[in-house]
Amino acid sequence: MHQDTLFPADPQTRAIARRLYGTVAGLKLICPHGHADPAWFADNAAFPDPTSLLVIPDHYILRLLYSQGIPLEALGVARRDGSPVETDKRAIWRKLAAHWHLFRATPARLWLEQTFATLFDVTETLRAGSADRIYDRIAERLEQPAYRPRALFERFNIEVLATTDAAHTPLDQHQALHNGDWKGRVIPTFRPDAVVDPEADGFVANVAALGALTGEDTTSWRGYLAAVAARRQAFKALGGTATDHGHPSAATADLSASEAANLFEDALRGRLEPTGAEQFRAQMLTEMARMSIEDGLVMQLHPGAWRDHNRLVYERFGRDIGGDIPRPTDYVAALKPLLDRFGNDNRLTLILFTLDETAFSRELAPLAGHYPALRLGPPWWFLDSPEAMTRFRETTTETAGFANTVGFNDDTRAFCSIPARHDVARRVDCAYLARLVAEHRLDEEEAMETAVDLAYRLPKRAYRL
Amino acid sequence: MHQDTLFPADPQTRAIARRLYGTVAGLKLICPHGHADPAWFADNAAFPDPTSLLVIPDHYILRLLYSQGIPLEALGVARRDGSPVETDKRAIWRKLAAHWHLFRATPARLWLEQTFATLFDVTETLRAGSADRIYDRIAERLEQPAYRPRALFERFNIEVLATTDAAHTPLDQHQALHNGDWKGRVIPTFRPDAVVDPEADGFVANVAALGALTGEDTTSWRGYLAAVAARRQAFKALGGTATDHGHPSAATADLSASEAANLFEDALRGRLEPTGAEQFRAQMLTEMARMSIEDGLVMQLHPGAWRDHNRLVYERFGRDIGGDIPRPTDYVAALKPLLDRFGNDNRLTLILFTLDETAFSRELAPLAGHYPALRLGPPWWFLDSPEAMTRFRETTTETAGFANTVGFNDDTRAFCSIPARHDVARRVDCAYLARLVAEHRLDEEEAMETAVDLAYRLPKRAYRL
Amino acid sequence: MHQDTLFPADPQTRAIARRLYGTVAGLKLICPHGHADPAWFADNAAFPDPTSLLVIPDHYILRLLYSQGIPLEALGVARRDGSPVETDKRAIWRKLAAHWHLFRATPARLWLEQTFATLFDVTETLRAGSADRIYDRIAERLEQPAYRPRALFERFNIEVLATTDAAHTPLDQHQALHNGDWKGRVIPTFRPDAVVDPEADGFVANVAALGALTGEDTTSWRGYLAAVAARRQAFKALGGTATDHGHPSAATADLSASEAANLFEDALRGRLEPTGAEQFRAQMLTEMARMSIEDGLVMQLHPGAWRDHNRLVYERFGRDIGGDIPRPTDYVAALKPLLDRFGNDNRLTLILFTLDETAFSRELAPLAGHYPALRLGPPWWFLDSPEAMTRFRETTTETAGFANTVGFNDDTRAFCSIPARHDVARRVDCAYLARLVAEHRLDEEEAMETAVDLAYRLPKRAYRL
Repeated sequence: MHQDTLFPADPQTRAIARRLYGTVAGLKLICPHGHADPAWFADNAAFPDPTSLLVIPDHYILRLLYSQGIPLEALGVARRDGSPVETDKRAIWRKLAAHWHLFRATPARLWLEQTFATLFDVTETLRAGSADRIYDRIAERLEQPAYRPRALFERFNIEVLATTDAAHTPLDQHQALHNGDWKGRVIPTFRPDAVVDPEADGFVANVAALGALTGEDTTSWRGYLAAVAARRQAFKALGGTATDHGHPSAATADLSASEAANLFEDALRGRLEPTGAEQFRAQMLTEMARMSIEDGLVMQLHPGAWRDHNRLVYERFGRDIGGDIPRPTDYVAALKPLLDRFGNDNRLTLILFTLDETAFSRELAPLAGHYPALRLGPPWWFLDSPEAMTRFRETTTETAGFANTVGFNDDTRAFCSIPARHDVARRVDCAYLARLVAEHRLDEEEAMETAVDLAYRLPKRAYRL
Repeated sequence: MHQDTLFPADPQTRAIARRLYGTVAGLKLICPHGHADPAWFADNAAFPDPTSLLVIPDHYILRLLYSQGIPLEALGVARRDGSPVETDKRAIWRKLAAHWHLFRATPARLWLEQTFATLFDVTETLRAGSADRIYDRIAERLEQPAYRPRALFERFNIEVLATTDAAHTPLDQHQALHNGDWKGRVIPTFRPDAVVDPEADGFVANVAALGALTGEDTTSWRGYLAAVAARRQAFKALGGTATDHGHPSAATADLSASEAANLFEDALRGRLEPTGAEQFRAQMLTEMARMSIEDGLVMQLHPGAWRDHNRLVYERFGRDIGGDIPRPTDYVAALKPLLDRFGNDNRLTLILFTLDETAFSRELAPLAGHYPALRLGPPWWFLDSPEAMTRFRETTTETAGFANTVGFNDDTRAFCSIPARHDVARRVDCAYLARLVAEHRLDEEEAMETAVDLAYRLPKRAYRL
Repeated sequence: MHQDTLFPADPQTRAIARRLYGTVAGLKLICPHGHADPAWFADNAAFPDPTSLLVIPDHYILRLLYSQGIPLEALGVARRDGSPVETDKRAIWRKLAAHWHLFRATPARLWLEQTFATLFDVTETLRAGSADRIYDRIAERLEQPAYRPRALFERFNIEVLATTDAAHTPLDQHQALHNGDWKGRVIPTFRPDAVVDPEADGFVANVAALGALTGEDTTSWRGYLAAVAARRQAFKALGGTATDHGHPSAATADLSASEAANLFEDALRGRLEPTGAEQFRAQMLTEMARMSIEDGLVMQLHPGAWRDHNRLVYERFGRDIGGDIPRPTDYVAALKPLLDRFGNDNRLTLILFTLDETAFSRELAPLAGHYPALRLGPPWWFLDSPEAMTRFRETTTETAGFANTVGFNDDTRAFCSIPARHDVARRVDCAYLARLVAEHRLDEEEAMETAVDLAYRLPKRAYRL
């Protein structure tokens, strides 16, 4: 990777970007939101092979290959019905290599090539002719102790890494990490979607599991709320500082206790219509904000994805294979009930994400630039790329400033991509700041300070880490 | 402020931008839309102190400080219930100084720092350590005759300044200015929202006041329309050339006279449902277009803000404290009834504004690039910043050209920021034009002419000044 | 036209752009979608005069002149009622010349000036003083054999040009071309809107005409489908490779055969309500996808225009005079029924267009970057300009890559503008790629290859040409 990657071509601006980047390139990584598996660090087992580590779990890669006609079976994605899929990891790798040109100008390429270069000392380009050599090089490294999860965590210079964990499941690996003597800070994030969304698979069973974990009677609205609050405490006890909520919309509600109790009762009996389910989820966001004020957990909201839009892919392969599609997302009306109650409360931090970038300048920056409880999460999922990250700064900063944003989230299941993702984000922010400096809109000294804010101080402060 | 502020870093483009800016930097300011207080010029009293002049009336500043947890009481904003708030102006100023870093890369900072430098010869940066010195310097200046409103008006090189005035209130200060011998051209703008929106506070009383001012019987639909028309004449007699309409949406209607009369009757009796209120406002926009064709007043429409979104702030402090939030705004269906009647009439000029920048390329440029009656107002409120002004040009020019836009509006209550706001707009437009020249999309001579159009000729022509 | 037109000013980036452009500037033109008249090539008659060729049929020019108050009558646009309009072609030309400044920074100007320079050796700027000289120069050329349609087709270096042809009309000119011995490849595109949209003018008669052309009984749903399928074959037999669908929305449906048959019956009897008409159109898109899988015709969808928004202009002058206005367009819910059936089928290619650029990053790139059947058409109509084409790349590439896009469409009725339009598109793409290279996001060699893909290989492959 060239040292000036992602920096503007203008020599004066590029020189500024280089200097800014020099101040942040080596800062420790704050990873407050992502999908790493805590078992990696609890067990510290070697990663099996290049394909299982770098290809199969990365839906950025799967979806683009799939869009060009490569069956998911040929990429080793397991079918729900147990039908055979490709199991030859090297064959899958070769398939990726043969189609690597599809990834030109995508962030997935930036991340993977930087991973190759910095982690595995691979300097040649991935293509049919180099596929085997690169595969072998990576496979050989993965057998070495220095490539075990804990060693990589340290090598990656991670200060803290939050995983995302269902509220109704035990936190065995986190407990093990907590009890163990490894110094790496890996913490859970409270993700209650499966016990909060009446339309989630197994909602009733999930709520029962939550009751069992907490010893609360989750057949009543009061008991259910007590169970949720207790479970939040359990996450907090293992170092958790945040909750995360993936809802179809940003709808919130402020119902009376009896209305909410009725919805809950209907939900448990499977009698809720879609509008009732939406109302219940909406009410639960407001309940979560209330609990956040009580227990101090930072709240994150990720709305606006149509999950599993591709029916066939969902039926054959299940969730998270690349079939989520964004939709227009309203925040202004949707959040009002919650904001009417808690929006002016400094104790609450509610971090908003979006897949609909039209909301950046129209809704999110105006909201976060006004309500004390609101902050803007970084560009997410389809927007976590250089161009979109630049647009995020260009459309939010003038109204919300930098201080109402929370720095970067890598938000990934692809562990090895974490350093590259942070590096890309730091480069993009430095490029943006360099332009401000070159255009005399910011002093270089202020830009230096801001670069450190964006890379390190803001996420640490926003997530109370 | 550096001479190259906001100009692209590329040396060739920057040199072009400098030359273009050189042709417009000294042009007189046309201020066809804003919120200056006519009493300033009628009374010509000294401004009281730096904080009252520069901080408390500026909701750009209030909202960002508030978003970071600083109570509005601590910023001296009066509470409706008369509870005590900070009255020590210097203490408030120090608070701003201590948080000045929050404003990095915001337009509020550009405007205030340019005001400091050009108006008060303040050259050091605002921060805790410099707060008192800067406060004292400004306070001392404000006592001088050269800092009285009329002197500043002349110093600012303002050719004409339009205020915004409720239709149902007397125009005493404008009358005094009209009768007086000061040569400054300060004119009213007819803003009838309070007598046109059945949901406005005191609608019935406002309509009665309109009747009293005009001697018309505003209890009937015909009398009400006659009163509105008469009041427009009164504004025109004092130099007004425009009306302004701040509606929740851009909805227009073309009802029969009897339908309209029924709505009006229901509105006076407080019997209108929200949909009826929307219909009445919609009908009134079409009536206003009709009257504009008759009396020649230019019509402005500012739709799309959710006013007073923050319930607590509204209840405690009232309106215009920074709690307005934009929403998606439709123009294509909304304006059709009005356009079907008057959209092809060259005598009408209807200037459209938006807070939803997605409408620029999708709806507004196509509409204004076709209908003879339509023009595009400059980027407004959350969009009146360098990045957003650039996006406005980049998303409207190719479809609507320059001639269907109307130059800049400062749209401010912050009097001292007027020169800085115009300067920023001129710089941004010159930077945009310089890029077109550098990319051989426009000759430099044409760009020079266009720069003068945007800064001076277009607003003067569009507002018939 | 300057050799560096549209290239970034930064010298290093510009040098890269020049090199990239050098590899594509001379490639043959692939014109897979447009509105050329097949009669031009079948008859090969001389074009009558400069105004009839370059002004009257170009709604980009008409609409901007009209927006600034020039009556369409004065521009020679025929009125439906036969009222007199300007017939002096030179007078119309002078009108354009006198208002040529309105077109600054618009694509219409880029295209026309490049046409002047490269086709007619006109080097002076169009203005009142030069109007007659330029008119005479062009008129004189149009009389020469080298300016006949076939000669221009060859001179323009067109490899293939697809016209757009109503499904229910005979293809006489295409048949003549097919039978003739001219080597130019001009092919039809199957456009069935008039027989698929129950709200189209003359729907019932159109369906009857379709029946007559195919010998099928189009009074029954089965016969109607058979007629559509047969007519597609007729287009295919004359070289057609694609269908095109201009619908108000992107709605699709997957109804039972009996539901569809009922809608069809109601449509024929003129009994369909607007929602029924929308449902029928929606169903027909899914039927078309099914037929595409059977016969291999590539499917194009152009949704989101409010056709003939200007009532007065439509009533006086008819369609396609510049009164179409875009609206927000949903793809995610709208396309789901079709995608649920055919979205994963590699045999289908469905090319999506939009007038709502907010869909690029939010919906279209995520959809095309996942579903094997989907591809993204180039920016269309109000978005076919340098800035918008750049935004298209910046908002789609990171999620969909290049391979899910289909290169350029000139989509024009203005025959002489075809080379200029392709040239602008190639320059814009090279400028975009050059920035990626300068920022070390793409190797120059890859960029070279990609530039050729975008200009030549992708459209040829996507449209199966």
